[in-house]
Amino acid sequence: MPPPFIVSFAAGSTGEWQVHDISTIVGDGLKRMPRLAVTTGEASLPAGGWVLRGVVSHARYTTASELKDLAAVQAGLGRPEATCAALIPIRKSEAWWSMAQDERRAIFEDRSRHIALSMKYLPAIARRLHHARDLGEPFDFLTWFEFAPEHETAFDALLAELRASEEWRHVEREVEIRLRRH
Amino acid sequence: MPPPFIVSFAAGSTGEWQVHDISTIVGDGLKRMPRLAVTTGEASLPAGGWVLRGVVSHARYTTASELKDLAAVQAGLGRPEATCAALIPIRKSEAWWSMAQDERRAIFEDRSRHIALSMKYLPAIARRLHHARDLGEPFDFLTWFEFAPEHETAFDALLAELRASEEWRHVEREVEIRLRRH
Repeated sequence: MPPPFIVSFAAGSTGEWQVHDISTIVGDGLKRMPRLAVTTGEASLPAGGWVLRGVVSHARYTTASELKDLAAVQAGLGRPEATCAALIPIRKSEAWWSMAQDERRAIFEDRSRHIALSMKYLPAIARRLHHARDLGEPFDFLTWFEFAPEHETAFDALLAELRASEEWRHVEREVEIRLRRH
Repeated sequence: MPPPFIVSFAAGSTGEWQVHDISTIVGDGLKRMPRLAVTTGEASLPAGGWVLRGVVSHARYTTASELKDLAAVQAGLGRPEATCAALIPIRKSEAWWSMAQDERRAIFEDRSRHIALSMKYLPAIARRLHHARDLGEPFDFLTWFEFAPEHETAFDALLAELRASEEWRHVEREVEIRLRRH
């Protein structure tokens, strides 16, 4: 399916993914529910749970050269061995969004190396970005990661690298939800 | 109100703006209705008419230097003398959206001079861009323009310049709706 398309992440008592851990990194957290269902399109709100929505859309910062390098190494979602996943919703500051495109790009890649450092973890860590800000959602981005259990340490290292970057100083809300499927 | 916020353009029998003319530039047109209501937030569908929605959001291509130059000369919406308006919904091709950020920026400004040529018409022509693609709308952008009657010729010239640009080769649907208020 070509972008743009909506994806809903519904936390409740059903869904393919079992919630293994949920941590609030900064700002308000999200209620822990036993399972997460990932659906293309809109999803109804599970009783007592929550739904976050985002749009898979076009690349906003990536250059043609970077897209080519990424395409050569990245893996898709749904690999049978990728039984671990993470959903990381983040919201950035108003100051971030009021910056111009070149200022945001300079922080994102020239100074934080977001793409370059993520590249080291490919193809082990598969990733899909969902844009939520323009939908009026409580988060700006929902990033979904999938990986095999033996790459969990690498995934932890990727998160540590990103969170230590200048870009992350502009993150004012972040929740980390770790998931498993069997 | 800080972005992002939704704006609805509802064409029907009510609304502050009277539809003066509607032209299909390329692709499918839109039904002519007598009036247009512009509302912040969601609007209900007028009987027999249509509603288009878009989000006022952050700048996607503009550099810090360009934002500064624009801020120094641009006018806001709602000037009493600006009794003419235009709503121009456009959709770009899949090929456009599959390009990387640097490729789109190169066409948009380096080769098409979208910002530079628009700047010549400031502050006479006030403008607000609404992003619609990620909302699942039939158009990618809804651009709203306001100007005084004596600047209509300048507005026509701006449209002619933009439509002659390389960027416009990627426009696959465009409708032009001219409006008046008293």
